[in-house]
Amino acid sequence: MMRRATLALATAALVLQGCAAAAIPVVAGGLVGRKTVSDRNARKARKAEAARIRSLPAAPMPAPMLPGVPPAMQYLYASGEAVALDLQAYMGLANYLVGISADLRIGHDVDSVVLAPGATLEQPKFLPCAGKPPAIVFDIDETAIHNLGFEGDAARRGEAYDAQRWADWERTGTRQVAVVPGLTEVIRVARLAKIAVVFNSNRLAENADATAAMLDGVGLGPVVHGDTLWLQGDAGSTDSRKDGRRWAIAAKYCVVAMSGDQLGDFSDLFNAPGATPAARREAAAGLHTTLMWGHGWFMLPNPVYGTGLRGGMDDVFPPATRWTPTPTPTPNSTPIAAPIAGAPAPVAKEK
Amino acid sequence: MMRRATLALATAALVLQGCAAAAIPVVAGGLVGRKTVSDRNARKARKAEAARIRSLPAAPMPAPMLPGVPPAMQYLYASGEAVALDLQAYMGLANYLVGISADLRIGHDVDSVVLAPGATLEQPKFLPCAGKPPAIVFDIDETAIHNLGFEGDAARRGEAYDAQRWADWERTGTRQVAVVPGLTEVIRVARLAKIAVVFNSNRLAENADATAAMLDGVGLGPVVHGDTLWLQGDAGSTDSRKDGRRWAIAAKYCVVAMSGDQLGDFSDLFNAPGATPAARREAAAGLHTTLMWGHGWFMLPNPVYGTGLRGGMDDVFPPATRWTPTPTPTPNSTPIAAPIAGAPAPVAKEK
Repeated sequence: MMRRATLALATAALVLQGCAAAAIPVVAGGLVGRKTVSDRNARKARKAEAARIRSLPAAPMPAPMLPGVPPAMQYLYASGEAVALDLQAYMGLANYLVGISADLRIGHDVDSVVLAPGATLEQPKFLPCAGKPPAIVFDIDETAIHNLGFEGDAARRGEAYDAQRWADWERTGTRQVAVVPGLTEVIRVARLAKIAVVFNSNRLAENADATAAMLDGVGLGPVVHGDTLWLQGDAGSTDSRKDGRRWAIAAKYCVVAMSGDQLGDFSDLFNAPGATPAARREAAAGLHTTLMWGHGWFMLPNPVYGTGLRGGMDDVFPPATRWTPTPTPTPNSTPIAAPIAGAPAPVAKEK
Repeated sequence: MMRRATLALATAALVLQGCAAAAIPVVAGGLVGRKTVSDRNARKARKAEAARIRSLPAAPMPAPMLPGVPPAMQYLYASGEAVALDLQAYMGLANYLVGISADLRIGHDVDSVVLAPGATLEQPKFLPCAGKPPAIVFDIDETAIHNLGFEGDAARRGEAYDAQRWADWERTGTRQVAVVPGLTEVIRVARLAKIAVVFNSNRLAENADATAAMLDGVGLGPVVHGDTLWLQGDAGSTDSRKDGRRWAIAAKYCVVAMSGDQLGDFSDLFNAPGATPAARREAAAGLHTTLMWGHGWFMLPNPVYGTGLRGGMDDVFPPATRWTPTPTPTPNSTPIAAPIAGAPAPVAKEK
């Protein structure tokens, strides 16, 4: 069990000992420390989060309920299955960062996972790192935190997305959020390993202070706008495309990992104009892209909103996969008029 | 980059050379083989799957469309984001199996990931392996394959789940399915590493032949009912609980990994009677459970159906996270009657 024990143990050791160098020596330590240390750590994170939620002001009575919670919200915000997906992604990321910190400590090269300008998904070319300090780049919404306050309000209204209400949420919804399970440990590992934690979000730069306060409030800060917090409007960005900001971040940092809930959190190439759902799936499963998932690029689940929620019947269910249930024979129908004596009884039509 | 290169390379080597023993020597091989070999392999898998879909009979024209495809179906079956989650889980599982096969080859103990009777999630105890042949246990629906034919029919009808139609689907829907991205490679790695591939599904035992044919048809077979295929009705099971079948499988095999889209695919303990959404989330993020995700237990996304789709407003959005948008001031209202000359103009009420 050495290989598997090693990473979990090294992660735990990093977290416990607060020293990236620990990643190497403790490898020899065997399995003993693994569960206990990592447990203590997980317990701490959960207790802190639970305490924070409890500390929130008492909420007014909920508004009268509309039809109910959309299934995608039940899944993402309330299912244990989604918690497992979150932890699977973030435990993998924590172990990945242990490997990165080990490479850094022993002087091995580490590479950037940010595609360079002019690169394609078929011919990927990554930006050089050239001695820059290491960083990990996170999206914020439904990657670092769950926007429970905003989505709960939307669910109660039963209305479509409201951009103005979202802008209000960016400014005022700084506390009604929950950290995505597992992230607190990843951030701890990153910071102890001297890997900078950077956020690249499509929240607006004009709301940077509120967003920074929100991240601080849930223990993901501190962040500095323009250094470890990048928002829509920064680096000349005028829309939701993130490559420009990624390149600005990569000009200063060696981006060793990225985490998001949308393909656009990894490269704008996935969202080429007119890209069909099939094209986006093909791109995500491309020859090189396939090797990135869980290996530099870390995806979090979000069926609630985003660029993936597209497609008509034939996009989602290719005609070649069309299935028609077996017809069930209809029961003999009673004739309107009583049958004439001796006439044959009506027979159910064969279908 | 050694550590990270090693696993991907070893996986690729296993796949290429068809020999579990390859896992060890090739580690020294460096990065060269990594992308090329793994690429070739991924390309093969995708080509085979594409060819299979093309080979399906031409489908009749789709029925007139109802309101549209539910977002959760768009996400799971048509988004590149879900493809990334699938590949992230299954590339991780493939690398995990390389570690297992390495442990087996060098004579290290490997442990079962099946909880023993009487164990709890807080006090986990796993079944002994004691020299049994290694196996990996997969759920089938939305874990091994996507039920495009059935779900597409359901989406067109816009009706709720129909158990009779599902039973018909088990018997007749043997071709209108798609393999979950990444699984074909995992199965190849497992079989080359001499790790048995076992399926534990809640499909009915009486439809075992059709289910086996379906798995064969998409290249996931062969399976033998009662040995590598376990269904509802086997091992005395009378409902969707799977522990009994897991223990029957574990009596013959050392179950080194499990994969599913529902918490019940890993332990029935997650579905204790009356378990609230909050309790299931807490259980999934428990001290020991946390360490299993991506490390013996591998979760696949499924927001379309299942035990996770539960909860009212206050379950999904805890009252402590309640947020109320900032009221927008109402514009000055024009008075019904023209104001009397000299009377103060009406002023918008301050809120």
